Amino acid sequence: MSIKLYDTTLRDGAQKEGISFSVVDKLNIACKLDELGVHFIEGGWPGSNPKDIEFFRKARDLKLKSAALVAFGSTRRANGKAENDPILACLVDAGTKIVTLVAKCSARQVTQVLETTLEENINMITDSIKYLRSKGISVFIDAEHFFDGFKDNQEYALDVLIASEKAGADCLILCDTNGGSLPDEVYDAVLKVREVTSIPIGIHAHNDSELAVAVTLAAVRGGASHVQGTINGYGERCGNANLCSIIPNLKLKMGIDCISDEKLAKLSEVASYINETANLNPNPSLPYVGSSAFSHKAGLHVSGLSKWSGSYQHIDPALVGNKSRMLISELSGRSNIVHRASEIGVPLPPKGKEAQQLLEKVKELESRGFQYENAEASFDLLVHRAQSDYRPPFELVDFMVIIESRRRSPTMHNDDEALSEAMVKVKVEGQIMHTVSEGNGPVNAMDKALRKALIQSYPQLSCVQLIDYKVRILDSKNTESQVRVLIESTDGAEHWKTVGSSPNIIEASWLALADSIEYWLIKHK
Amino acid sequence: MSIKLYDTTLRDGAQKEGISFSVVDKLNIACKLDELGVHFIEGGWPGSNPKDIEFFRKARDLKLKSAALVAFGSTRRANGKAENDPILACLVDAGTKIVTLVAKCSARQVTQVLETTLEENINMITDSIKYLRSKGISVFIDAEHFFDGFKDNQEYALDVLIASEKAGADCLILCDTNGGSLPDEVYDAVLKVREVTSIPIGIHAHNDSELAVAVTLAAVRGGASHVQGTINGYGERCGNANLCSIIPNLKLKMGIDCISDEKLAKLSEVASYINETANLNPNPSLPYVGSSAFSHKAGLHVSGLSKWSGSYQHIDPALVGNKSRMLISELSGRSNIVHRASEIGVPLPPKGKEAQQLLEKVKELESRGFQYENAEASFDLLVHRAQSDYRPPFELVDFMVIIESRRRSPTMHNDDEALSEAMVKVKVEGQIMHTVSEGNGPVNAMDKALRKALIQSYPQLSCVQLIDYKVRILDSKNTESQVRVLIESTDGAEHWKTVGSSPNIIEASWLALADSIEYWLIKHK
Repeated sequence: MSIKLYDTTLRDGAQKEGISFSVVDKLNIACKLDELGVHFIEGGWPGSNPKDIEFFRKARDLKLKSAALVAFGSTRRANGKAENDPILACLVDAGTKIVTLVAKCSARQVTQVLETTLEENINMITDSIKYLRSKGISVFIDAEHFFDGFKDNQEYALDVLIASEKAGADCLILCDTNGGSLPDEVYDAVLKVREVTSIPIGIHAHNDSELAVAVTLAAVRGGASHVQGTINGYGERCGNANLCSIIPNLKLKMGIDCISDEKLAKLSEVASYINETANLNPNPSLPYVGSSAFSHKAGLHVSGLSKWSGSYQHIDPALVGNKSRMLISELSGRSNIVHRASEIGVPLPPKGKEAQQLLEKVKELESRGFQYENAEASFDLLVHRAQSDYRPPFELVDFMVIIESRRRSPTMHNDDEALSEAMVKVKVEGQIMHTVSEGNGPVNAMDKALRKALIQSYPQLSCVQLIDYKVRILDSKNTESQVRVLIESTDGAEHWKTVGSSPNIIEASWLALADSIEYWLIKHK
Repeated sequence: MSIKLYDTTLRDGAQKEGISFSVVDKLNIACKLDELGVHFIEGGWPGSNPKDIEFFRKARDLKLKSAALVAFGSTRRANGKAENDPILACLVDAGTKIVTLVAKCSARQVTQVLETTLEENINMITDSIKYLRSKGISVFIDAEHFFDGFKDNQEYALDVLIASEKAGADCLILCDTNGGSLPDEVYDAVLKVREVTSIPIGIHAHNDSELAVAVTLAAVRGGASHVQGTINGYGERCGNANLCSIIPNLKLKMGIDCISDEKLAKLSEVASYINETANLNPNPSLPYVGSSAFSHKAGLHVSGLSKWSGSYQHIDPALVGNKSRMLISELSGRSNIVHRASEIGVPLPPKGKEAQQLLEKVKELESRGFQYENAEASFDLLVHRAQSDYRPPFELVDFMVIIESRRRSPTMHNDDEALSEAMVKVKVEGQIMHTVSEGNGPVNAMDKALRKALIQSYPQLSCVQLIDYKVRILDSKNTESQVRVLIESTDGAEHWKTVGSSPNIIEASWLALADSIEYWLIKHK
């Protein structure tokens, strides 16, 4: 059985609240999707906004290895002519070999929302297909609201498909536009559609009932051979069907070889790359690709996994480019702590006092807002600091930060950015270093001042960079809340994460920043 | 058909990375679950930690209206006696009328992980059931790894169930512990189980394949009458089956009346309450209960909804206590802006210059990190400020914030919190007010200084409170990133949200803070 994967992250996915892709973002994502091995990339709706027109113009220079680029759009307007239609003209100009047209299949949607006759709707669809075909373009039909229409007025819903096939469409994609259908209903409807049509059938599902993946698999079971979805399930409302779950389900659970093993092993990386480009907080619970997807906290599970790696994991995480993690937290036992400490070269007796004291320390700090599950470098420092012979590479003494916004003119708005200045005092090799720096924001100013203080003693430090900085307000109740700062750093080779917590965001940042640098220095001294 | 809902948010849900419930949290959540009308509340594992023992002790004083409290635990140890088993003793002490025991059903798990014989595993289960029954406690069996076991060694998996029924269990819950099963496999297995047993069958699914809700519905279709899950799908790895999707799917799509209409209408509130108690960032895309679940951004959808509210929504959001939202964003058209402006009493001509200029302004500010989808009060202020006759209730002139951490003693760690002081200059009714305040963190200090400056002219302001404060680092790349601050405020009656953005977190907070207060003042002048 062969399945074609059709990605609509760049069009339907971009409807997600909070996403706004630039043209460059879209071009980068298209290349990444091509690497993953999807067969079709829907790039946008060139008739709807200038950004998408520009995307298709620039996309001509992309050297895609296997994926075909597709433009999306609507049919000609009611009572107009296809050859004069501005949206169809944009679609032709987009220059793709395939165009997907949205076609209403629900009789009620046609009369109440499109406000035209059932007959004219079919004419709009067939005229548009014929027109694009005459320009040498293949046409996929997104049969909008198909399953709702199928329930309300089955005959009309099927008529639209039959007419589309007759007009020359190459694929009929049944859309659960509102995301309200159950998998069994979809399965039955696909079987019915296959009785009256003979071109490939596709499925396009939304997750409003938390069933989009199941609906997609049910359609495939019914004979659909074209699957639409988005990376990480992006999409408006509750999202589109998530290709990052569909692809491994098809391949690993249903034995349908839609992409190669090598490409499947890139899945987590592609998901994370696109999430970063979309500028969204990663969802750690995402199946297969999330950072928690193979994380284990319960002591029983950790001990089970040490006996059999499949005991609490449904697949080998490496198949999708992910990995297992054993979490350190107040819920974890001494065994997790002993395990981690031995990894960093600090052997602790499994039942000894040190491990117990460290566990108590973790519990106490977590009650004050620190969290070590995601900040293993800060945990490692706790282990080192608990050793009597530990000598820190530097010690914090004082800091002061000033943020100031002064108007230069008496106009109502002050367009000058606020000024930030940080003064830092640290003790390095017995010497007090007192430095000051301006910065783009207070945390950046502290970062720069701290580096100034340390660079003389540790010139190699210049290769350390902060690459992620996250702030979490812990109880979110008011401006007095506890603040947790997580920082991810890299020296080009390794990545590590540190945590700071305080009611004061500046102090929390300072603690995470200092841990990041201390961690690297003791590892590379 | 009657379905019993079994919530395990307090036990399996608490395994989610980042969740750590206090005893008080657990008691509050239990009451909320009772309000929602679930039939069973699994409160924890009293043998595994002291917090859960305390929970069950205090839970005796809860006046639950309809839900029964359940304690969870493991069977007696291998080669031990039930009457001497410390975990079973804890379960009896918990004082619940029902206990759920986890029982391994996978032969391979028994031999490789539990490291005992297949026979002894069955004895451990049956002895434990009989012992608890002898104490007057009903026993539910969580058949761990049932579906994996069913595939590997069907006979043994079924033998465990048959023996459990014979020993006196009241319900057999089939667990997809690793979350790797497909809905059809689960459906077939449930049919098979019903052939060899006659007590009620339950389903406990995990979301590792993004199919937990579908697996649950498939089991119900196969005849399961007991459904386990968690609120918001909390749980380790990718989470447990999400009751917030299962309940409305059962009731609204499958016609199974598991809770009353009135209770269903509380679903969104319960989901949000528990999310707040769990101290997690809300997931706006959650089906049914998420803030984006019925949000519309695409111009075509907004116009469709104005003609027929069902055109792009699978249910009436009020049924689950949620509501529709039309988003203002750079992607939205002038019509969304005209619509919102008219709601706040500023009529704009639909095709006029003002609406276009506002749209341009929104686009420009969003490119600088502001975001109005979630900050409608800040958008309303943009509309007001665009009016030539608008006179703001106050104007910001300058501010300065100092954060200082000074050591009082030369010990290595400074346990004193950093000091924050804010100086604020604002113009109120033609007069310059220059105030200063300390605070618990810099944002709190600014908040207090600003109120000090305004309280003389606007004494009613004291009823305004900030109730939520969120920080988002926009590109998360380093300490120089753009920062977006969202603030939610209330005066006890109304809630409103404002936004600020700047590379400087203090300035971004200041802008959102000032908007919050300006919004309230002009609404109540």
